[in-house]
Amino acid sequence: MELKRGYQGEILRLNLDAQKFEIENLDPETAENFVGGAGLGIKYLYDEVDPKVDPLGEENKLIFSPGPLTGTSSPSASRMSVTGKSPLTSCVGMSTVGGDFPAEVKFAGFDAIIVEGCLDDPGYIHIDEGEVEFKDADDLWGASTFDSQEFIKRDFGDNVEIACIGPAGENLSKMGCIICGRRAAGRKGLGAVMGSKNLKAIAVEGDEEVEIYDEDEFREATGELLKAMKDSEVLYPTFSPHGTSMVVEVADELGILPAENWRSTGEFPSEGLYSGSQKDYRIRMEACYNCPVACSQVRLVEEGPYQGELSEGPEFETTYSLGTGVGVDYYPAIIAGDRMCDFYGLDTISTGVTIGFAMELFERGIIAEEDTDGLELNFGNHQAVLELIQKIAFRDGFGDLLAEGSREVAKRIGEDSLRYAMQVKGLELPGYDVRGAKAHGLNYATSYTGADHNRGYAFQEIFGIPVPEEVDRMETEGKGELTKWNQDIRTVTCDCSPLCVFILDTSIPGRADEIMSSLVNSATGLDHTPESFFKIGERINNLARAFNVQVGYTREDDTLPQRILEEGIEKGGSKGQSISKEELEEMKDEYYEERGWNEKGIPTQEKLKELELDYVIDDLQ
Amino acid sequence: MELKRGYQGEILRLNLDAQKFEIENLDPETAENFVGGAGLGIKYLYDEVDPKVDPLGEENKLIFSPGPLTGTSSPSASRMSVTGKSPLTSCVGMSTVGGDFPAEVKFAGFDAIIVEGCLDDPGYIHIDEGEVEFKDADDLWGASTFDSQEFIKRDFGDNVEIACIGPAGENLSKMGCIICGRRAAGRKGLGAVMGSKNLKAIAVEGDEEVEIYDEDEFREATGELLKAMKDSEVLYPTFSPHGTSMVVEVADELGILPAENWRSTGEFPSEGLYSGSQKDYRIRMEACYNCPVACSQVRLVEEGPYQGELSEGPEFETTYSLGTGVGVDYYPAIIAGDRMCDFYGLDTISTGVTIGFAMELFERGIIAEEDTDGLELNFGNHQAVLELIQKIAFRDGFGDLLAEGSREVAKRIGEDSLRYAMQVKGLELPGYDVRGAKAHGLNYATSYTGADHNRGYAFQEIFGIPVPEEVDRMETEGKGELTKWNQDIRTVTCDCSPLCVFILDTSIPGRADEIMSSLVNSATGLDHTPESFFKIGERINNLARAFNVQVGYTREDDTLPQRILEEGIEKGGSKGQSISKEELEEMKDEYYEERGWNEKGIPTQEKLKELELDYVIDDLQ
Repeated sequence: MELKRGYQGEILRLNLDAQKFEIENLDPETAENFVGGAGLGIKYLYDEVDPKVDPLGEENKLIFSPGPLTGTSSPSASRMSVTGKSPLTSCVGMSTVGGDFPAEVKFAGFDAIIVEGCLDDPGYIHIDEGEVEFKDADDLWGASTFDSQEFIKRDFGDNVEIACIGPAGENLSKMGCIICGRRAAGRKGLGAVMGSKNLKAIAVEGDEEVEIYDEDEFREATGELLKAMKDSEVLYPTFSPHGTSMVVEVADELGILPAENWRSTGEFPSEGLYSGSQKDYRIRMEACYNCPVACSQVRLVEEGPYQGELSEGPEFETTYSLGTGVGVDYYPAIIAGDRMCDFYGLDTISTGVTIGFAMELFERGIIAEEDTDGLELNFGNHQAVLELIQKIAFRDGFGDLLAEGSREVAKRIGEDSLRYAMQVKGLELPGYDVRGAKAHGLNYATSYTGADHNRGYAFQEIFGIPVPEEVDRMETEGKGELTKWNQDIRTVTCDCSPLCVFILDTSIPGRADEIMSSLVNSATGLDHTPESFFKIGERINNLARAFNVQVGYTREDDTLPQRILEEGIEKGGSKGQSISKEELEEMKDEYYEERGWNEKGIPTQEKLKELELDYVIDDLQ
Repeated sequence: MELKRGYQGEILRLNLDAQKFEIENLDPETAENFVGGAGLGIKYLYDEVDPKVDPLGEENKLIFSPGPLTGTSSPSASRMSVTGKSPLTSCVGMSTVGGDFPAEVKFAGFDAIIVEGCLDDPGYIHIDEGEVEFKDADDLWGASTFDSQEFIKRDFGDNVEIACIGPAGENLSKMGCIICGRRAAGRKGLGAVMGSKNLKAIAVEGDEEVEIYDEDEFREATGELLKAMKDSEVLYPTFSPHGTSMVVEVADELGILPAENWRSTGEFPSEGLYSGSQKDYRIRMEACYNCPVACSQVRLVEEGPYQGELSEGPEFETTYSLGTGVGVDYYPAIIAGDRMCDFYGLDTISTGVTIGFAMELFERGIIAEEDTDGLELNFGNHQAVLELIQKIAFRDGFGDLLAEGSREVAKRIGEDSLRYAMQVKGLELPGYDVRGAKAHGLNYATSYTGADHNRGYAFQEIFGIPVPEEVDRMETEGKGELTKWNQDIRTVTCDCSPLCVFILDTSIPGRADEIMSSLVNSATGLDHTPESFFKIGERINNLARAFNVQVGYTREDDTLPQRILEEGIEKGGSKGQSISKEELEEMKDEYYEERGWNEKGIPTQEKLKELELDYVIDDLQ
């Protein structure tokens, strides 16, 4: 078996302990079975990292992996996965990011960069095609992601693209993210993993083209994707001009926009945060490398206390986490918070949700001003939110506790607080109240990264798209099958190929396996059928699950926060909706069965064999 | 007469009203008589702008002019003058800036860019050698200088160098500056002039080399300058590693570091701001284009409430204006203030001094919390300083008043406040208490830009350099002659050729006319003797004076703040020192005589003829 095109064929392995590097060939079989992106990341993680290692210890690794389509003329494929064991969840930590960095990794000649070990002192890596330099970063340690990127560009010129951490990652805040430009590989605390390795940044540049296996077929496949995008009634007319902000009103109208740490879903006044209002702040739209959609909204505050604040965002999720979730309906404060999180290198979702959690504890009297460094943590206090963002990044005072994430905060504060911690497996919940969108709930409960909307987003429930068939968002039955399908198709198309999730949802929800397998085949010379292609998604989800099982996660951990299981939504478009413990268990039974997992949620030997994961079988005994 | 080399030979004239441009030849006679930089700027200003125009009206112009050495291999010559009528002083407004922008103007093919008229709507200019585009800047209006530069670079690639304004300039704050990278053409409110023209930025790029007239002689002259720099006992050993921060302790030890709006010079505890302490914050040193000294200190706050704040600075002057001058000895707050001023596009000196003035009025009960938007404006309240910086930039509340500058603030608040306004001709005083450095006092009183240390800095008094002869800083006699010499040599070498002021002071104080005339001659083919070269400085100072005379400035305006003239320094190394009104008048008499001006401070016909400024004579009748 031989590797053909699309891939650069080489993996850069950085050994931080020795400050050395090796260039390895990409194994053609791995390419075939895992495609790229998260597939490569999880494969390397599984093969090379013991599930029991300390995520912030030197045995953990970080794998930066774009996909075969990244850096090609395929639209909306400039994404990359970052994979490692998460310090926030202890599960597989996999986060994706767009912008220009992912394509630059390909141009530098690599399908993946594997980071191993730890630097003795803060440093960063400069990669210029085959050349790799280990640089001192003593000076930049402590500097924001914006400043760090600027000064690295001063040293290497402006063609370099940078992935870096800010103070949050350095200080091992478990919400520390990795920033590329102004985009984030946001979730699961992978910035803290970088920080634990004393690695401030990776700066890449290169001019290597990505060669295409069959130009004619590739052009045809690209054309088909572009046509589907053009034909979408949503993508260019609504999504492009508003980006994910359009989801604010959709979620609110469905009554599933969580507010005030999920205690006021359906009743919080969110109209001021709808995309129509956000439009007033938009000054321009930005695109990832070679993306015709340019959905990224750059927003500027022009008056009031946050005037002059600008962020590339906030996305829907941030409007929830630093907005409704903390009881803030003042949009400029959300822009300011978004910018601060990017500046310090913090995941906006986990940061906001953990602050919202603290606010609920404060309002319930479980914690008080003597715990919060004197901050009055009432919902809606956006000044306090901004202060806490800085404190979490630097682990100052109360921020040092919050930097551990809501699960750990609850553990330390006491049992009675846990029911308000909106997290699954340690990962804070994204902005869809799953009580009114049951497949979302099952996905949050079962995703291999914890409560992660991106790993198996049920667009069917949010946008009413009848693919693979019509669903009732209030219904629990059938959600096992749906969730498996969502997770698998999304994994192979979005996390591996990669294709931006928004293209999948808006333009090719029912044809993703067919269109994306054609694209990947023509780019790489692989020979997948839509079915074998889809199977890759399943393979990766199983392999990730196998990792998590060995971490120690069991069926009991495939759960939802106690509040979700015990309280219904009281008002709005999902009034009366709930997911009981029993309903969740029924959904899990169905899901496990669909997955071919046993009743404990462990992949069976048969399933693993079917997925050519035989070598995993022994690990699960 | 013909223009030879060194110059690019072309002037770009931008007509904003019509959104058109013209390229004119640089007149060889102007080049010979005014060299470049401020020489060109003031010549064009004088010839083309009526001294009576509204500085913020469409008849004012802005001239961006590097010098003949800019962009060559001559060290430390990457400077540029920005010239226009100042909205803060109504005088000639001339400010210089370094970094990479000045050389890029030359590479784009121009010796100067003249900006005329006003855009109807916010816009910016992109210049790529001969190509000039007028671009819409509606989106960036309101954005910080950092964000604006980033997004313009996204549009034009990273080779572009940018001069831009922030919200302060847009809002016509009279302390609005022009930011290039992280450097500022800081003083005299020229950012507001740009704002009044609806001009957000000028972005330039180009590859035109600057051709040298006589390579051999130029190499020799450059070598001589480099040797003098290397031989300096101060430049590399002390100045380079600390930058202007080294002046903090020098000024404090001399007892001339002003504190608390100049009421506590000599008694404010400033040790924590000495360069040794500032070193703890330094993370790297940056250089202007082709400068071997790299004196610019990038400083980062690593702990405390301002952690994560970073600025390229603060320079000595900012340590005074946002530090001792406002009673702040907490260095991180000065870094934060410096960054904010750069971010919003505000001159740190005028901003800080005006805030210090307001603090004194507050402490004296002349204004109270109902005037200050509730801020407690006590000296040392750095939180209030930072809040006011934002307010001044956006002209919010009390900031709208302060944005007018201390002279105008005093006018509006009332006669009793004027004595505390530390300004001359509307320009706030830099950080040398002139009561203990009399030539500085005379320079502040007579400089054509108002109280401006850079136009005639008396290094003799600060560093004890006996050039052209030894002086006693406490003495008033002889300071007229000295000040004229300082102003003229500095103008032609630093503002025109240009050479960074710090090289003049540290390395060639006694040979500047000789070394710099050789450099300029060999680069350009001009044929100046050291004497005719020096004379250029005198010519420019006279031409600028002629402009100011026609604005309406008279001998009475060549003065110092009432506090200086009526109160002595009470403690420290200059204890008991003062400048009485009489002493000042005596110094002015001597100065006018040295200058060949009449007793009203108006250039005489004889002097103007001697300087080949015959055409000015009629204007002064």
